[in-house]
Amino acid sequence: MSVLISGSIALDHVKTQKAEHENLLGGSASFATIAASFFSPVNLVSIVGHDFPESHLELFKTRDVNLDGVQFSDGETFRWSGEYSEDMNTRETHDVALNVLEAWQPDIPDSIKASSRIVLLANDSPDNQHRVLDQLGEGPVFTIADTMDLWITIARQRLEELLPRLDLLVLNDSEARLFLEESNLVVCGEKLLAMGPRNVIIKKGEHGALLFGSDGKFFTAGAYPLRELHDPTGAGDSFIGGIAGYLDSLGRDELTFDDLKSAIAHGTIVAGFTCESFSTKSLETLSKEDFQSRLDAFRAFSAYQ
Amino acid sequence: MSVLISGSIALDHVKTQKAEHENLLGGSASFATIAASFFSPVNLVSIVGHDFPESHLELFKTRDVNLDGVQFSDGETFRWSGEYSEDMNTRETHDVALNVLEAWQPDIPDSIKASSRIVLLANDSPDNQHRVLDQLGEGPVFTIADTMDLWITIARQRLEELLPRLDLLVLNDSEARLFLEESNLVVCGEKLLAMGPRNVIIKKGEHGALLFGSDGKFFTAGAYPLRELHDPTGAGDSFIGGIAGYLDSLGRDELTFDDLKSAIAHGTIVAGFTCESFSTKSLETLSKEDFQSRLDAFRAFSAYQ
Repeated sequence: MSVLISGSIALDHVKTQKAEHENLLGGSASFATIAASFFSPVNLVSIVGHDFPESHLELFKTRDVNLDGVQFSDGETFRWSGEYSEDMNTRETHDVALNVLEAWQPDIPDSIKASSRIVLLANDSPDNQHRVLDQLGEGPVFTIADTMDLWITIARQRLEELLPRLDLLVLNDSEARLFLEESNLVVCGEKLLAMGPRNVIIKKGEHGALLFGSDGKFFTAGAYPLRELHDPTGAGDSFIGGIAGYLDSLGRDELTFDDLKSAIAHGTIVAGFTCESFSTKSLETLSKEDFQSRLDAFRAFSAYQ
Repeated sequence: MSVLISGSIALDHVKTQKAEHENLLGGSASFATIAASFFSPVNLVSIVGHDFPESHLELFKTRDVNLDGVQFSDGETFRWSGEYSEDMNTRETHDVALNVLEAWQPDIPDSIKASSRIVLLANDSPDNQHRVLDQLGEGPVFTIADTMDLWITIARQRLEELLPRLDLLVLNDSEARLFLEESNLVVCGEKLLAMGPRNVIIKKGEHGALLFGSDGKFFTAGAYPLRELHDPTGAGDSFIGGIAGYLDSLGRDELTFDDLKSAIAHGTIVAGFTCESFSTKSLETLSKEDFQSRLDAFRAFSAYQ
């Protein structure tokens, strides 16, 4: 079985105070896919343009990513350009060109539908996220969705309609506060749960993540401690990609809250590696040994007698 | 044996968007003492004025706090007045009157010196913190100090001279960044360790705390999830008071990194209770059962398979 991941593929132009790179593999689905494929095969659902580099396609292929759900358009690939501040905590978007993404509506080939056990709706419009679920029917075991401030602002109703369809909603702390008009993150998590998703993760960047489940279940994890960030673009997408891939790798038809806790640890480690290079470079060369070493260390970092 | 806690005793005037109270027990040593006394007897070293309410003294006495090291002056007690924003994340100081605190220099009675196993230098000038250690000599098993942005700015050299004398330095994330002129908290922790203290805790408020020890030892803990904050004044002081009291309660002459991890859990729980009422009200009525219940829950919140 596989993880189905829908969302954007982008060509990123990223500038930090130390370096600058163009035509990087970017987009919510790309980061999530490279992260998930560390654990499990991925069915990718997205769209690219004629200018999408062959090398990025090769990367997907070498990682057992099924591209049957990727539409190849004559237009130009979605492009994003941004610059990070010295401390990497803020970034300024210089340019966004939606291009082929603007009119895209995901279509899921039948071949993919049958083999998708975990569904990850990476950041995209709620309309597109609904459309993916509509086509998949009752098949998937576990459905995860990410969102962003844009959709909370311009598509709130469709986003709210999506929530009851989700096993897991994932969003940033600032997005949760915007969504609920409430500053306390514990209250945000509980209010989001009441809106329908079976579980909610609030991401807090360098401060880790909070997980809220049914019957008052709660889990808190720190981030992996990093001395230097080279490019945090895609860290959140890698985090949920890691979660989705790990959950699929369990090979089970029912998932527990304990599975989600362990998944957050796995997602945290891949997100940390993402921050240590531009684009998906660190993830591409990540070995099982290096991953396991950090996973073991991370467990020790929060364990006490 | 006992915990020696030196620092300020204040009368606080606290305003939130929901309530306002005057003549509250406040000050770094007061919060730390009430928190520590939950676990172990305390020798308090501080100063109060003629206007200090008898009821506050009674509170200390009922909690097995030795007041031999408290100077009773004819002047007025140190007073602080402030107001919190709606979300409790920022506060504005309306007025500070140092009063008797201004010229105070701590003097440690011999009776206290002999019985002080753990020393907590709660927030105070580095000069006073040095003075306490000078008088205690080689006696204490473990020395903890807190500080604040004021001392980093106006007394940096004396603060730096204090660091090698400490087993544990505790400070806020914003203070660590100010001290090191470095935004990455992992780097801050490591650089602070290199300045002499055997261990460093960086407090992150609602995001918990990071602990750095020798040989790369590291620990991260979340905060206890609170739905409502009534008055966060003194949360950080309660946190280190809980740490100091718990460490003393272990009754050992040598403390390990594992002890510090467990101490952080204990400090986190008392700090959470502090936020749920004005001043030390919640701590005053806290039962062993309610404390243990949250301590158990807190452990589960960060444990995973």
